[in-house]
Amino acid sequence: MAGTVKPRRIGPGSNIAIIAPAGPPRADRLRKGLEFLRKRGYKLRIYPQVRRKLGYLAGDDKARASALMEAFSDESIDGIFAAKGGYGCLRLLPHIDYKVIENKPKVFVGYSDLTALLLSIYNKCGIVTFHGPMAAVEFGRRLREYTVDHFFGAIEGSLLPATIKKPTGYKFEVINDGVAEGIIMGGNLSLMARMAGTGYLPSFKGRIIFLEDTEEEPYRLDAYLAQLFMSTDIKDAAGFILGEFTRTEPRYGHVKGWSAAQVLNDYFSRLHRPALTGFPCGHGKEKITIPIGVRVMLDADKKTVTFLESGVEK
Amino acid sequence: MAGTVKPRRIGPGSNIAIIAPAGPPRADRLRKGLEFLRKRGYKLRIYPQVRRKLGYLAGDDKARASALMEAFSDESIDGIFAAKGGYGCLRLLPHIDYKVIENKPKVFVGYSDLTALLLSIYNKCGIVTFHGPMAAVEFGRRLREYTVDHFFGAIEGSLLPATIKKPTGYKFEVINDGVAEGIIMGGNLSLMARMAGTGYLPSFKGRIIFLEDTEEEPYRLDAYLAQLFMSTDIKDAAGFILGEFTRTEPRYGHVKGWSAAQVLNDYFSRLHRPALTGFPCGHGKEKITIPIGVRVMLDADKKTVTFLESGVEK
Repeated sequence: MAGTVKPRRIGPGSNIAIIAPAGPPRADRLRKGLEFLRKRGYKLRIYPQVRRKLGYLAGDDKARASALMEAFSDESIDGIFAAKGGYGCLRLLPHIDYKVIENKPKVFVGYSDLTALLLSIYNKCGIVTFHGPMAAVEFGRRLREYTVDHFFGAIEGSLLPATIKKPTGYKFEVINDGVAEGIIMGGNLSLMARMAGTGYLPSFKGRIIFLEDTEEEPYRLDAYLAQLFMSTDIKDAAGFILGEFTRTEPRYGHVKGWSAAQVLNDYFSRLHRPALTGFPCGHGKEKITIPIGVRVMLDADKKTVTFLESGVEK
Repeated sequence: MAGTVKPRRIGPGSNIAIIAPAGPPRADRLRKGLEFLRKRGYKLRIYPQVRRKLGYLAGDDKARASALMEAFSDESIDGIFAAKGGYGCLRLLPHIDYKVIENKPKVFVGYSDLTALLLSIYNKCGIVTFHGPMAAVEFGRRLREYTVDHFFGAIEGSLLPATIKKPTGYKFEVINDGVAEGIIMGGNLSLMARMAGTGYLPSFKGRIIFLEDTEEEPYRLDAYLAQLFMSTDIKDAAGFILGEFTRTEPRYGHVKGWSAAQVLNDYFSRLHRPALTGFPCGHGKEKITIPIGVRVMLDADKKTVTFLESGVEK
C-alpha cells in the first residue's frame, strides 16, 4: 500500500453491483431501494447472492465473499453498494483477496456491520471506502433528503470538500475542545473492537476517528472501548467524532449505571484530544456519507467538521 | 513465569477476602452468601469496596484494583472469593501489578466477567486460578449440592483428580469424537474475545479449552468466535469442552437464524479436535469449579472429562 487511492467518481449511468455481505435484506425494502436507485439513473446488477439466506447470513461465507470479489473484479462494474448490514462481514475477512481489490479501486458503500469490510479494504488496499447508507436500509424506507443528498454528493464528487452542516434536530456537543486535522477513519464501534488483534484494523495514530453504534448496552460500549484502548494505538489518534449511539437501554434486568454518553465521556475526556458528539453518521434518522481515508479538520471549539478533500477522483 | 504454580489449599478456618472487581452485589444475596460461607467455617473479610457503586461498577477502577491487590498482598489472607460478576474486570487489567501476585499465589475464585482476571493472572503469573461460583451469586441464592460439593472439593483439595460426573438433567453431546489431554484453560467466551489483541490472553495451543456464556445472541457468539479464530491460536488447541450458553434468544427483532448450538457446531466441527457440549461450567443451574492450569483428559468417545490433578497444593 503506497498512499491512499481514491476510486473514480460514479453517477447516473454507472453500473452498480448490489451485494449482501452480511445479513439477508427484506424483500420489500430491497425492492423499494432498487427502484429509488434506478430512478436516480443508476444501472443495477443484483447479485443472486443477495437473495440467499443461511441462518442470519445472506448465504454462506463462500457465496458472500465470492459476490464481493466478483463485484470488485468485474471491469464493467463501477461501484458496489451493500444491501444491508446485520452480521457476517467479520467472517469474510480471511476469505477476501485484497491483492485483487487493490488493483480495482471502485466506490464501495455500506456501514454498521460493513465496517469490517470498509476498514479492512482501506487498511490492506489503501483504497478510500465509503461509510454511508445502504440499498435495502435507508433507501428501502422513508427517504430523507439530508441522507440522500450527502450520499450522492460524496460518491458523485459534487459535495466535498465542505464543512458538514447539521441535520435538523441534531446537536453537536463537546467532550474536549481544540482543533485537529488528519485522515478520517472509523465506523461501528463494536465491529472495530471485534477486529482487535486480527490484523485487519488500520492504525488510529494521528487519525480523526469516528464512531457510532446501535443495540449495545452502555456496559458493552465500555467493553469495546476497554479492548480498543488496550489493543490498539487509539490513544494516539488526533481527534474523535462521535456519532449516534442508539437503542442502548440496559436489558436482562442489568444494573442501570452509566448511560452511553457517560461511557464515551469516561474514555474520551481522559485523552485530552478534540472530541465532538452528535455527528450524523450512525443508526439515527440522518447520516452523511463519510469517505474513509480523506483529510478532515475537526474544530471542537467551533463545533465543525470540515472534509478537506473529496473521496473520489473526477 | 516458570511453570504453573498451585496455591495452597484452603479450608475451614482460612481467611477469605471478599472483593467485587466487577459489578456491585445485591445486599440480600451478599448477606446470604456470607452467612453460608461462615457456616462452612471460613473467616471472611469483606473489603469495603464491595459496598461501593459507580454506575454498573462496584466503585471506580482504582478502588476495585486496590481491593484485589490488597487481598493478594496481605499475608494473612489465604483465599479470595469474588462477590459477583457483571462487568468491570476488563477495565482492571492494566491496573494490576502481576509481579506482586506472582509472589503471592492464593486461591482466587470467580467466573463470568471474572474470566478476564482468572486468565490474565494465569497468563502473567502462572498461577492456577479457579473458575467457580461466587459469594453473592450461587451462594446468595438457593444452594445446590452439586455446585457446593464441587466448589469445596476443588479449593480444599479433596475432590480432584477425578472424572467429573454429570449433574442431574445435564447431557453431554459430541461435536467431534476422539481423546485429548492437555492443560485446561477458558471461561466466558465474550470476555475471552474482548481480551483478543490485549496481550492478557494465554495461548490456546495444545490446551483443552472450555467456554460458556450467557445473554449473548447467537450472532454475537459467532462474532466472538470469528475474532478468536482470527486473532489467536485457538485452531491449535487440543480439544474443546463447551459449557452452557444460556439466554441466547435473538432480540430487537433480529432475523432468527442459527441457534447458539449451531454456531458452536459451525466453528468447532471444522477443527476436527475432540469437542463435547453440555458441561456444567456456565450460567446454568449447576457448575463445577475448574482449576485453570491443571492437566485434564477429554474423552469425547466416552463423553468424559477427567481432571488428572488437583488445582491446590496440600
